[in-house]
Amino acid sequence: MIRRYDFGTPFPTDSTVLTLTPEAAPVPHFTTRQEGTAVSFSLPLSEEDMIFGLGESVRGINKRGHLYRAWNSDDFSHTENKASLYASHNLVLFFGPEKCFGVYVDDPGEVIFDLGYTHRREAVITSTGGDVSLYLIEGESMIDLCRQFRQLTGRSYMPPKWALGYIQSRWGYATEEELRTIVSEHRSRHIPLDGVSMDIDYMQDFKDFTWNQDNFPDLPGLARALREEHIRLVPIIDAGVKQEEGYDICDEGVQQDFFCKKEDGSLFVGAVWPGRSYFPDFLRPDVRQWFGSRYHRLMDAGIEGFWNDMNEPALFYSEESLQEAYAMADRHRGGNLGIDETFALKDAFVNIANSPADYRRFYHELDGRRVRHDRVHNLYGMNMTRAAAEGFRAYDPDKRFLLFSRSSYVGAHRYGGVWQGDNSSWWSHLLMNLKMMPSLNMCGFLYCGADLGGFSCNTTEDLLLRWLQLGVFTPLMRNHTAQHTRNQEIYRFDNWEQMRDVLTVRYALLPYLYSELMQAVLTDGMLFRPLAFDYPADATACRTEDQVMLGRDCMIAPVYEQNATGRHVYLPEEMLLVRFRSATDFDLVPVPAGHCWINLQLNEFPLFIRKGHVVPLSAGGEYVESVDWKRFALLGWLEDDVDVVTDLYDDDGQSTAVTLKEHLTPIRVAVSEGRAAAEAEGLTLDVTPLLID
Amino acid sequence: MIRRYDFGTPFPTDSTVLTLTPEAAPVPHFTTRQEGTAVSFSLPLSEEDMIFGLGESVRGINKRGHLYRAWNSDDFSHTENKASLYASHNLVLFFGPEKCFGVYVDDPGEVIFDLGYTHRREAVITSTGGDVSLYLIEGESMIDLCRQFRQLTGRSYMPPKWALGYIQSRWGYATEEELRTIVSEHRSRHIPLDGVSMDIDYMQDFKDFTWNQDNFPDLPGLARALREEHIRLVPIIDAGVKQEEGYDICDEGVQQDFFCKKEDGSLFVGAVWPGRSYFPDFLRPDVRQWFGSRYHRLMDAGIEGFWNDMNEPALFYSEESLQEAYAMADRHRGGNLGIDETFALKDAFVNIANSPADYRRFYHELDGRRVRHDRVHNLYGMNMTRAAAEGFRAYDPDKRFLLFSRSSYVGAHRYGGVWQGDNSSWWSHLLMNLKMMPSLNMCGFLYCGADLGGFSCNTTEDLLLRWLQLGVFTPLMRNHTAQHTRNQEIYRFDNWEQMRDVLTVRYALLPYLYSELMQAVLTDGMLFRPLAFDYPADATACRTEDQVMLGRDCMIAPVYEQNATGRHVYLPEEMLLVRFRSATDFDLVPVPAGHCWINLQLNEFPLFIRKGHVVPLSAGGEYVESVDWKRFALLGWLEDDVDVVTDLYDDDGQSTAVTLKEHLTPIRVAVSEGRAAAEAEGLTLDVTPLLID
Repeated sequence: MIRRYDFGTPFPTDSTVLTLTPEAAPVPHFTTRQEGTAVSFSLPLSEEDMIFGLGESVRGINKRGHLYRAWNSDDFSHTENKASLYASHNLVLFFGPEKCFGVYVDDPGEVIFDLGYTHRREAVITSTGGDVSLYLIEGESMIDLCRQFRQLTGRSYMPPKWALGYIQSRWGYATEEELRTIVSEHRSRHIPLDGVSMDIDYMQDFKDFTWNQDNFPDLPGLARALREEHIRLVPIIDAGVKQEEGYDICDEGVQQDFFCKKEDGSLFVGAVWPGRSYFPDFLRPDVRQWFGSRYHRLMDAGIEGFWNDMNEPALFYSEESLQEAYAMADRHRGGNLGIDETFALKDAFVNIANSPADYRRFYHELDGRRVRHDRVHNLYGMNMTRAAAEGFRAYDPDKRFLLFSRSSYVGAHRYGGVWQGDNSSWWSHLLMNLKMMPSLNMCGFLYCGADLGGFSCNTTEDLLLRWLQLGVFTPLMRNHTAQHTRNQEIYRFDNWEQMRDVLTVRYALLPYLYSELMQAVLTDGMLFRPLAFDYPADATACRTEDQVMLGRDCMIAPVYEQNATGRHVYLPEEMLLVRFRSATDFDLVPVPAGHCWINLQLNEFPLFIRKGHVVPLSAGGEYVESVDWKRFALLGWLEDDVDVVTDLYDDDGQSTAVTLKEHLTPIRVAVSEGRAAAEAEGLTLDVTPLLID
Repeated sequence: MIRRYDFGTPFPTDSTVLTLTPEAAPVPHFTTRQEGTAVSFSLPLSEEDMIFGLGESVRGINKRGHLYRAWNSDDFSHTENKASLYASHNLVLFFGPEKCFGVYVDDPGEVIFDLGYTHRREAVITSTGGDVSLYLIEGESMIDLCRQFRQLTGRSYMPPKWALGYIQSRWGYATEEELRTIVSEHRSRHIPLDGVSMDIDYMQDFKDFTWNQDNFPDLPGLARALREEHIRLVPIIDAGVKQEEGYDICDEGVQQDFFCKKEDGSLFVGAVWPGRSYFPDFLRPDVRQWFGSRYHRLMDAGIEGFWNDMNEPALFYSEESLQEAYAMADRHRGGNLGIDETFALKDAFVNIANSPADYRRFYHELDGRRVRHDRVHNLYGMNMTRAAAEGFRAYDPDKRFLLFSRSSYVGAHRYGGVWQGDNSSWWSHLLMNLKMMPSLNMCGFLYCGADLGGFSCNTTEDLLLRWLQLGVFTPLMRNHTAQHTRNQEIYRFDNWEQMRDVLTVRYALLPYLYSELMQAVLTDGMLFRPLAFDYPADATACRTEDQVMLGRDCMIAPVYEQNATGRHVYLPEEMLLVRFRSATDFDLVPVPAGHCWINLQLNEFPLFIRKGHVVPLSAGGEYVESVDWKRFALLGWLEDDVDVVTDLYDDDGQSTAVTLKEHLTPIRVAVSEGRAAAEAEGLTLDVTPLLID
């Protein structure tokens, strides 16, 4: 059951699809306090209580013990002390001996989540602005709370099937020739590949919806040629629009009054990649309609997928923040700077970016009303994504396009996926990638993943290899890195064959992964879940942070430590360990419930299949379209004389109008006297790998 | 066996105490290459090879898979990508199926260690300057190599006994009243305490060897009064000397020509805490003699311990680096900055600190010869510490003083300890603290520890509690934090009693810890060792990175994850688990060899004692001098009918002239028919807690 409580004048965020009538306070479970404009909700925590949710944020699956701040931030240093990343997903779930409820804090301004940080035994959630709709969700389990939340906020985005293929990316790809080389280097080595994503350098002077005519003299031709090789190009679109007379997007926006303005009515100017830029007021339907329609230019050139970036919005500087820094320099020039002055001077220049003052300098318009940006800050990225998604729908309502965004808010999960932002080539970020997946899933973001190998800093061969072994299971599987870092394409490494072998597993599991993803989408479920969700009565499972449940049948437990040749795994029930080296080279080991140690050499990674479940493994392929969706070996560990039925979902991979029922094929495995026989309409099934006892 | 190979003209670092005659190249095991001035040494790695050493550096105990750079750096962000921290400990040990040797790269300039980073299967060590003495150490085991290395580089520093007590610290303590409050808050709650360390704010205008007369009107009186409460004050001394006429230290240094100069002979000026400062040329014996003698002023005031800081040396800026930044600002003013210009502008101000150009701007003098700083950069901190240690010896040659430093080089381990620098309140840094201990020990640094609770960022109650549980075992046990962070004294937290209970274990184990530390010092051994060193034939033990051996008898395995209520532990042999809640409240659990899961609630932490070993536990106390060193309960798990003898070391805790023999007391435990009897001259022993089977 969900109840809504309103405080102040909540801004209509469109994050929910159900319209609930607000109830009268007090909010059950919580103590509500008003202090100035702020309103806070607190509750005591027992020693055993755990806290889930908050989607894209640092630290554990259990969020207890830190302070988080909903404030979409372009901050590339994802250290564990950070309170904010690029997105705000204000769902918090309380789980304990006497707690099974959650709150969704629908406030697009700053919200502080003090989850046992100031006091271990207390959680305090504070809306700074005090205009908030608080949704209290009560139910019988964490899974139930998440399903209710999805019903409140709407069905998750459905990617096209090809978007589950492997995508190669780098900030720095700048020419047609480079892209062709990357494709041919993969194809010639039989390294699977479905897409190449294009970062900012493909554009002309970083102008949205342009491409550099020298470097891409015939983008439609290139897209067509690569499409014949089953490769899609995935260009980036940024939030800021270059301030340049004669640049049509800029001119249109200015003429039609589509950009954000300052208090005095003049256009707000902030700098991003192209220097001084304007910021479309994405909160307005007419602006979204306009901006969304501009994607059509690239779609006409054959593009079927995009990523939206810089939409927190990131601001490198404003004239105002820059002037303040210059003034600070002038003030200190010639002086004998002590420590306070030194830090103040450095900070002045560091802080020209994303300055809180700048976020107070511009306004949005909604139904003729002006809203200062900082009050609705966390909605910006979501509405850019919405603009794109609405533009795609206008272009072809029957077709799915790939779309993922850096910044988001609850509700954006209906329009696209997210990547986990500008992470680093750190082993700790491989683990963070894993932990963030279930948290994002809780908040509705099912199509997601992190930059495999890491974005900033230099990766190493073993880090990329281990990270790909996790990426095998994330819907978005993209290798991406920053400018000036070490080469990160698989084929650049000494032992690239091991990485290719990892990718063969991805493609062999594609039918299964797609089936589980789509079933999660269509049932308001989760592809990734904390063990606590599936085994709430198992205290050890509940505290397990480095393993997650995958789909209905599996658990994953990647190696995330350098030089490790194995890892500890906790099995809440007996499972079949599939120790993969490649799609055709793997061990099948039945493992009893409890704690165990699994040996995993650098080229090995595990998939655990719950006993009594089966997972179909295809022959794989070098691109999604080449995968044979009709012929499978079945992996599983089954009890004798117990039959198993599982549903495999499949569709054409691109239609938007799909329903669960018409696309499910039941796979029936009959087990008797130590032998299995399997059948499913239209499928050829090999039961040889099944273990039976 | 150690062999020395010289390349170029090695600088006499004084890091070794043995003088070996250089042998003719080639260096066995390595391929030597000259490229320009640089000389590099490479060797192939097998998949199984592990690499140990490098003392103070990030990442694993096994250093394989990263690039490290010997370049002492004041960089507070200890993320895993960092190549340098504050110290350079250029010992690297190779361990594998066909490798058991090490190299010590005695070059105080930049040295790059590419340990399987560029290519997984190759290690390359490069001396950029090419003036290097390479010591090749061969032996029968890793422990043997480390012992040989210590014989080459000299016996480790011996701290006074009181230095193993708990020390409270914070950047920000500024007045006598504050210090008295801290002491009384500990004493009134019976939280053990032996020292309060004083960060820069006790000084007058950040001037070395001064104290603020307003805030400390009678420092000698305060020191005396606190000493009566068994508390020592531990002030900080910085490397830079404030440029100020009339300030005696500055005047003396200028008059006697003790400061580093630029090429044109003018004094080099760099800014640190007090603003513009001079830098003593610590590489000169006369400068060390002078600077070391200046500690006497504080020693006369009753001070018995110091910490040396900012001695990389850290440079906040120089006039030159500042002018370059201002010039960059002038160049960009009024312009429409694109991304390159924006980053260049920000970087110009960020990079005013510790600029490579500044380290090339000043010179040292040695025997009339001028040496540019960057060629000997990594020696600076060591020689400041040496200056202090030599000053202490001059003050009282028979007494041990506490001394630890931020920056160091091999050889500094003879003069003082180190702390692990300005870490953060991150769970990952708790683990890094653990991993760095054996690496520091390998390089001779036995008296060491990290800022418990974390220096920068805000700690949480559970992080500090878990960190104290590790700190129980580190010789330096100091709670320290930065300016403007959350209060971090134990008594500030809701459940401070749990932290106090942890400290009771430290004080109960003090006789054992002191004994093991001193035996390690006097036998050129290690207090902390990787499991690989003790169980080289056990492949799983070799890869274990989150447990370390402590002394001759124990293994520690702290919890380092937030919200964890237990952890996985690998036991290479059967051991007794002591699950401590306090010195008087603990469980004794015999645990078989192999992998296991240990439940550890937030207030519980484990000590593992090898079967057949005994550990004496005293009754503890609230300060070191109150600990009863004569009365012990014995902890251990013994086999029936097998007698055990172990040596307990003790001395007066302050004399410098100590030998192993005269201070060892054998504890003999006779076990027969399921019963134990123990005896040791002058000790009262309780065998009740012993488990026998």
